[in-house]
Amino acid sequence: MSVRETLAGSPDVRRTNLAVLLRHLHLDGPMRRAELTDRSGLTRSTVAGLVGELGRLGAVEQTAATTTPTAGAPTRGRPSPVVRPCPLGVQVLAAEVRVDAVEVALVGLGGTVLRRESHRTAASAPEPIADLLADAVTELARAAPGRVLGLGVAVPGVTRHDDGAVRFAPNLSWRDVAFGRLLAARLPGTDVRVVNDGDAGALAEHLRGVARGCGDVVFVEGEVGVGSGVIVDGKPLVGAGGYAGELGHIAVAGLAGRRCRCGSYGCWETEIGLDAIVRGLGLDDDAHRREVVDALRAAGPAEVAGLDRVAQHLGAGLATVVNVFNPQLIVLGGLLRELYPVVSAQVRRTMVRGALAAPAEQVRLALPELGDDAVLLGAAEAVWQRVLLDPVAALSA
Amino acid sequence: MSVRETLAGSPDVRRTNLAVLLRHLHLDGPMRRAELTDRSGLTRSTVAGLVGELGRLGAVEQTAATTTPTAGAPTRGRPSPVVRPCPLGVQVLAAEVRVDAVEVALVGLGGTVLRRESHRTAASAPEPIADLLADAVTELARAAPGRVLGLGVAVPGVTRHDDGAVRFAPNLSWRDVAFGRLLAARLPGTDVRVVNDGDAGALAEHLRGVARGCGDVVFVEGEVGVGSGVIVDGKPLVGAGGYAGELGHIAVAGLAGRRCRCGSYGCWETEIGLDAIVRGLGLDDDAHRREVVDALRAAGPAEVAGLDRVAQHLGAGLATVVNVFNPQLIVLGGLLRELYPVVSAQVRRTMVRGALAAPAEQVRLALPELGDDAVLLGAAEAVWQRVLLDPVAALSA
Repeated sequence: MSVRETLAGSPDVRRTNLAVLLRHLHLDGPMRRAELTDRSGLTRSTVAGLVGELGRLGAVEQTAATTTPTAGAPTRGRPSPVVRPCPLGVQVLAAEVRVDAVEVALVGLGGTVLRRESHRTAASAPEPIADLLADAVTELARAAPGRVLGLGVAVPGVTRHDDGAVRFAPNLSWRDVAFGRLLAARLPGTDVRVVNDGDAGALAEHLRGVARGCGDVVFVEGEVGVGSGVIVDGKPLVGAGGYAGELGHIAVAGLAGRRCRCGSYGCWETEIGLDAIVRGLGLDDDAHRREVVDALRAAGPAEVAGLDRVAQHLGAGLATVVNVFNPQLIVLGGLLRELYPVVSAQVRRTMVRGALAAPAEQVRLALPELGDDAVLLGAAEAVWQRVLLDPVAALSA
Repeated sequence: MSVRETLAGSPDVRRTNLAVLLRHLHLDGPMRRAELTDRSGLTRSTVAGLVGELGRLGAVEQTAATTTPTAGAPTRGRPSPVVRPCPLGVQVLAAEVRVDAVEVALVGLGGTVLRRESHRTAASAPEPIADLLADAVTELARAAPGRVLGLGVAVPGVTRHDDGAVRFAPNLSWRDVAFGRLLAARLPGTDVRVVNDGDAGALAEHLRGVARGCGDVVFVEGEVGVGSGVIVDGKPLVGAGGYAGELGHIAVAGLAGRRCRCGSYGCWETEIGLDAIVRGLGLDDDAHRREVVDALRAAGPAEVAGLDRVAQHLGAGLATVVNVFNPQLIVLGGLLRELYPVVSAQVRRTMVRGALAAPAEQVRLALPELGDDAVLLGAAEAVWQRVLLDPVAALSA
């Protein structure tokens, strides 16, 4: 009998085991109870008891075993019921602050987006944004079909881990905004977590998207600026204060590079962000994102040639990323998702020339799988992480 | 009664608890048995029994309690005996391959360097180096006062985690050298671990040097090339294949930068390595390291001005490191240890201008504490890690 099994009756261990089972279901979706038994290493009867408790907490439901077992899945004894997370039973709120809009969503257990709304914003002052965001999520929570456990908010800026203060969000012109506190004041009783948008996207693609199963992943999202997040050995790279992984501000163009909105010179985002792509495509300075996307999708040889400098700097920055992190996968999101297919040969050539051979052999470039939902799903995870630490406390509070 | 205590009698848990106690002693040195009790959360009698077992394994010794308690340390009941790791009882071998020498050492439990030798090398072909290294450590092992548990070897190159193959060591002109296997063939029965020298230095400074207690640390050592290692949240950054943390090859000088021995352009080591410092000081191209160190120590305003470009690129690279890792501490070793005090104002200015304010506020630059022993101590840790995972298996094998 394993140590874990010996202790299955103790309240502490029971809570830990509930958390283990719920994590499997939240991340991997419905599965047979026998699969949960295999994964957890607990006995069949222990798992049955725990699943029953998760059911009483409203987090999962069981459906009767089908009589025809899945092809290839051996049946041992009686067919095993299927356990599934209940997105309608347990939810969290998620929000994403963008330059010109606030996106809000209600996300069910298991990562199901139950409802999603986009609210255009006219200006970017913190208080009106906080008002709009708080109103929108309050409305969502009111109409929620189940229990709502908290709010995760992604912002395009350098965000302090402890209290959700936004230290610097150049595209919103925010500096030292206590955004976590602004929201908490408007949403009393709600657990509010503020995270960086790149970190959120990285986490979501790692847990549910193209980077599933990869322990070392870098997510780079190009828009006006470049957001990014890094997964190291299966965990988000955080750093001393939560500011790590700001790849938009690695120096790729040398000391003589363009001035960046961060105050430095030659940052990656000055060479691969929206403005650089607009220049490369020969569009008007004030071209909208939509025009840029259209131009990239219609790009011919002249546009590819015009984008040469952008492609080279994308490749050079990726080489640095490869040498620094030795990732299995780099996910290129946002505008880079449109740009990369157009100039992939040049990007790969520059990356391979600039990177050390050993890590370059191991890296794969990919486009995100979750599309526009990545950042919201990642923001939601900031709350789910707490719930999954101790589901009993979270769900019976 | 805690869960851990309930299980203290089970053989698995007993092994885990032995490992916990031995880790405290190996990393933090001698301490009162009461301190071990506090740290482990186990009962006094359990700790007494475990310490007794570690004593029988030859790993620790106890000395009678002093009658005068240390000032400020409250005594509860009888004075507690002092438990200390036995460097003479349990040892590992450590080696460092340098460009012109092989360093070998015998390192006792607790990180005590018991003996150390330097062997000059005339050429750098892998086989003769492996011969010399194997002979030298065999000699050390023969004269060892206790049990020798394995060999950790640091090399200045990109090293594969799995099997100790050196993928690329430009300054040795090694490419795809199965160095781990060469050594294992010469040292049958010895557990051989090959690691990158920068990773080893980072680990040693983190465990025993200036970076003790810091969870997020970057170690940068400038010599001919730039070696480096990164600690993320208390653990070494490894990456998919063990190649992560090659900061010498981040692109700081742009695509028009100097060609690097890695084949790329504008890598950090082309701007802050030995050659760059030699140029900055106006020395002959073939100046020896010793002359460079002397010139740095005697540097006046003319030399400081000459080193301006090096200082700026050191600062710019550090800014990238700050933005990427948000470390609490960056440790500057090797020649950078000599360079930094000479140009610290310029380096800090460029770093602060180039880095985002939030992570820049949190970082401290420091010089290493372990000096020439850092890499050897870090190489030894590659073996200690295995021993500390399961001391019973390692020490009774």
